[in-house]
Amino acid sequence: MTHKGCTLWFTGLSGAGKSTLSERIFDKLKKSGAKVELLDGDEVRMHLSKGLGFSKEDRDTNVHRLGFVSQLLSRNGVISIVAAISPYRETRDQVRAKIENFVEIYVHCPIEVLASRDVKGLYKRALAGEIANFTGVSDPYEAPLNPEINVDSSTETLAESEARVWVRLAEMGLVRFD
Amino acid sequence: MTHKGCTLWFTGLSGAGKSTLSERIFDKLKKSGAKVELLDGDEVRMHLSKGLGFSKEDRDTNVHRLGFVSQLLSRNGVISIVAAISPYRETRDQVRAKIENFVEIYVHCPIEVLASRDVKGLYKRALAGEIANFTGVSDPYEAPLNPEINVDSSTETLAESEARVWVRLAEMGLVRFD
Repeated sequence: MTHKGCTLWFTGLSGAGKSTLSERIFDKLKKSGAKVELLDGDEVRMHLSKGLGFSKEDRDTNVHRLGFVSQLLSRNGVISIVAAISPYRETRDQVRAKIENFVEIYVHCPIEVLASRDVKGLYKRALAGEIANFTGVSDPYEAPLNPEINVDSSTETLAESEARVWVRLAEMGLVRFD
Repeated sequence: MTHKGCTLWFTGLSGAGKSTLSERIFDKLKKSGAKVELLDGDEVRMHLSKGLGFSKEDRDTNVHRLGFVSQLLSRNGVISIVAAISPYRETRDQVRAKIENFVEIYVHCPIEVLASRDVKGLYKRALAGEIANFTGVSDPYEAPLNPEINVDSSTETLAESEARVWVRLAEMGLVRFD
């Protein structure tokens, strides 16, 4: 395979499927010999953003740090995959402006579906008012207006979402499997 | 030229010449077409470590973040150059343990010489007790015991220090100019 350096930025609500889909993309690229890194929001918080909370300012700082690292990687030929709620449109667009091949992937899922799945029990608690600054419930989520890729985990299978990503990356000339 | 991914970690007191030497190395690598990034301590603090101070804990956090980013870059074939006081031996060694090709470059200069140069006027203020946590004066600096490269900006010219770096990188098989 051949590829260009780029950033695949997965944004969406907690539980929408960002980690699952991004890990699938990462695994396939890795097995194919690509230079690829996965920066998962939760994990990276430990390394880069310990001590930050969930205010708008702290969320923005976290997103900018992810963007800074992703920029360094992708301008050196690496596919940098970021999975982070990254709820603010303007902040994502600031990151986009700094990165040459920026691919925004909006992982959508209606909040009612997320609340009924509620794998970690967080939505129940958030809807009961027990979690402040919970994106989509007690904190805003600003959906991308014009993302490079839209997927919807409430209406598509994981395989369908994945296929959508590969098709678009090929169309954009970023990834080619021989 | 050809090169391997590696981390060139410049450590030493403020004013010893880390930035000057590391910029020189960076410029030559960049001009030769290498994949190379320069992470300068002061600059990176703005991006990755805003809000951190100069306690041991905060300094260590800053060094670990630099190490995290440098690890991502160098394992993807990039020469990552870090210039940071990074005063604690154990912390530098923790970073070393995570990075395959780690080259520690100790930029030495006796404190008397630094105090007499005192480009930014910081040593005068630190020696007068006006700056807390100033490395080498009111805060410790633990010199590397066995760095890959030793340079001394009080006894060598910049060109001599630079030559030392190129010779050692070639010996280690990390950089080759054709």
